[in-house]
Amino acid sequence: MKFAANSVGLVTAKTVHFDAPFRVSCGRDLPNLDIVYETYGSLNSDHSNAVLICHALSGDHHAAGYYNEDDKKPGWWDNYIGPGKAIDTNLFFVVSLNNIGGCSGSTGPTSINPATGEPWGPDFPTLRVRDWVESQRLLADHLAIQRWAAVVGGSLGGMQAMRWSLEYPDRVMHCVVIASALKLTAQNIAFNNTSRTAISSDPDFHGGRYYQHDVIPKRGLAIARMIGHITYLSDGVMGEKFGRELRSGSFDQGTESVLEFQVESYLHHQGDIFSENFDANTYILMTKALDYFDLAREYNNDPVIAFSHARCNFLVMSFSSDWRFSPQRSEEIVQALIGAQQAVSYVEIDAPLGHDSFLLPVERYNQVFTAYMKQISQHLGSDSHAS
Amino acid sequence: MKFAANSVGLVTAKTVHFDAPFRVSCGRDLPNLDIVYETYGSLNSDHSNAVLICHALSGDHHAAGYYNEDDKKPGWWDNYIGPGKAIDTNLFFVVSLNNIGGCSGSTGPTSINPATGEPWGPDFPTLRVRDWVESQRLLADHLAIQRWAAVVGGSLGGMQAMRWSLEYPDRVMHCVVIASALKLTAQNIAFNNTSRTAISSDPDFHGGRYYQHDVIPKRGLAIARMIGHITYLSDGVMGEKFGRELRSGSFDQGTESVLEFQVESYLHHQGDIFSENFDANTYILMTKALDYFDLAREYNNDPVIAFSHARCNFLVMSFSSDWRFSPQRSEEIVQALIGAQQAVSYVEIDAPLGHDSFLLPVERYNQVFTAYMKQISQHLGSDSHAS
Repeated sequence: MKFAANSVGLVTAKTVHFDAPFRVSCGRDLPNLDIVYETYGSLNSDHSNAVLICHALSGDHHAAGYYNEDDKKPGWWDNYIGPGKAIDTNLFFVVSLNNIGGCSGSTGPTSINPATGEPWGPDFPTLRVRDWVESQRLLADHLAIQRWAAVVGGSLGGMQAMRWSLEYPDRVMHCVVIASALKLTAQNIAFNNTSRTAISSDPDFHGGRYYQHDVIPKRGLAIARMIGHITYLSDGVMGEKFGRELRSGSFDQGTESVLEFQVESYLHHQGDIFSENFDANTYILMTKALDYFDLAREYNNDPVIAFSHARCNFLVMSFSSDWRFSPQRSEEIVQALIGAQQAVSYVEIDAPLGHDSFLLPVERYNQVFTAYMKQISQHLGSDSHAS
Repeated sequence: MKFAANSVGLVTAKTVHFDAPFRVSCGRDLPNLDIVYETYGSLNSDHSNAVLICHALSGDHHAAGYYNEDDKKPGWWDNYIGPGKAIDTNLFFVVSLNNIGGCSGSTGPTSINPATGEPWGPDFPTLRVRDWVESQRLLADHLAIQRWAAVVGGSLGGMQAMRWSLEYPDRVMHCVVIASALKLTAQNIAFNNTSRTAISSDPDFHGGRYYQHDVIPKRGLAIARMIGHITYLSDGVMGEKFGRELRSGSFDQGTESVLEFQVESYLHHQGDIFSENFDANTYILMTKALDYFDLAREYNNDPVIAFSHARCNFLVMSFSSDWRFSPQRSEEIVQALIGAQQAVSYVEIDAPLGHDSFLLPVERYNQVFTAYMKQISQHLGSDSHAS
């Protein structure tokens, strides 16, 4: 085995099929559901050590480990999931799924709509964060997990974790909310809308029915990803990573047309990779779920009232250089939790890497995350937490 | 006359034709130049009261006043140019031009290339900020202005003002640099590149030869403008202006497909207007000039050495909420000026409106700007400034 000692090593994805109709919050039904997921570690005898990982915009079920020995990259959160890592698979049974509406195997726009025999495409029901919580609840039932030791997520994943704490207060012991927000700001919505516009105005989009035309809206998706990349990194780290270095080296007069800054070719490369691996309808659906998320909407627009329904402990973390989900947004979560007299720990991590910090190795973040999860593991099966 | 007392009122644009070839910094020649410009106020007898306005990315020569009595909007900097305003046309002779490479009448990509009889399009020479300074110098000669009382500009305009102070130190008395930078950051370049990619990947772009196809890359230009709008405003002011208000009012379940946030329709509207009024090749050319601008490149990459060549006084202003040209960028200008022992005044204006603040009415900005220009007017014709 060539994997590091703190890697979960080789993993395989499983699929669970739910044959009953799934009522989506918009009122429509999906006739059935496939959910693709992975698990790491072992479920203990009283099923009290399960941790749910909620993924963000472009994530999937493959959060840790490798599919084969030649894999170049592990799962997207391998920095924090594994034996001895923050989410310690020696202690926890970790469940990571591809959300419905996704494009990595769970029922989504690329799935066949049985009513038409064609991919759902743009006809796939609009999803809210609460629909993901509900489908994750089905998965929990399937795995005989009555209560999660922790529901954990960054960014859009943090929104799912918070929604869990309100929808199923008795089924969550701890809620870990990283680089997230009670709702997006207008600027954030505007970035998402610009990305969606880039996709939908690509002539290869065909109103979302590109599958039938054997094309993908590559150009639009690439632009969406470029916008995402810029806004998920900080100005500082982009400067450090690329500065104003030119790819071709020198800045000779008269040859401007071939000049390209390093940051440009990096972005183009990232955009191209993404556009070949991610579904455009899923991107639109996921960003809309982000935009429309508003934790307190059904609670008289008061997040204090909302959080008064929770019965778990909270860990909230933010990153100093994150300007897309700034520490101020996390502080709003914390203030509402305090107002609702909930137990909450909050740490703003000094990290230069922007919003992407939640995915990347950051020492202080790792320390805080590890200590908190360790604490959870020492009280598994008990119900001693204050709420 | 229905115009306000402090308006320059009706104005008309003039065109000057320079018949000699114009050598561009990339080594190529433009066979001749048209420059469209406007002037406000009167040139005094010793020609010492002339102020040059340098425009930014999407600006033009129409900086103040109206073309006819039915005009809904005055020129783009009418807040600051007029009788009794910061740039007081009772005191100054104000010159505002459309930069070459522009799309408002000066020689640019939409002009006919005499060698082909077709619009220049993508074959128009790549321009640097120094090329604008050189063409502005031609205009100064034409107007018999030996020395500008002030060269003034915001954003990309500030870069032109700084370059003037180095290229023609004896022809600038004061340099007013607003919300600008010594060079762009990687993040800024990345935003510009994403905008250019949106334009160039629009199938209607045709490699820049869309004129010949009787189309314009509307979708790409609209996306570029949307990105611009988001980044030129602050998160805070977008929140104040639009919040998370939905255009259709209520948030009924089941009708998501028709929901649209106000900020979305605003951005689409702005994008559409812009795409019908601005030339795509000009947008690409202007943003490249922004990206490649680096004041100190030819001065051993040392802005202190660069500014040691200046012989004017400087006023530098920035805006607290401007994250595209942040106060830190202005402070770098100021530090370099201090290092070069130049006379510099610096004010960071507390303003919530982001980068666009430099165009908008902001009281403190107006006060500082007015006081500085007043001071200049009191020493016209003399040569008493320290340098």
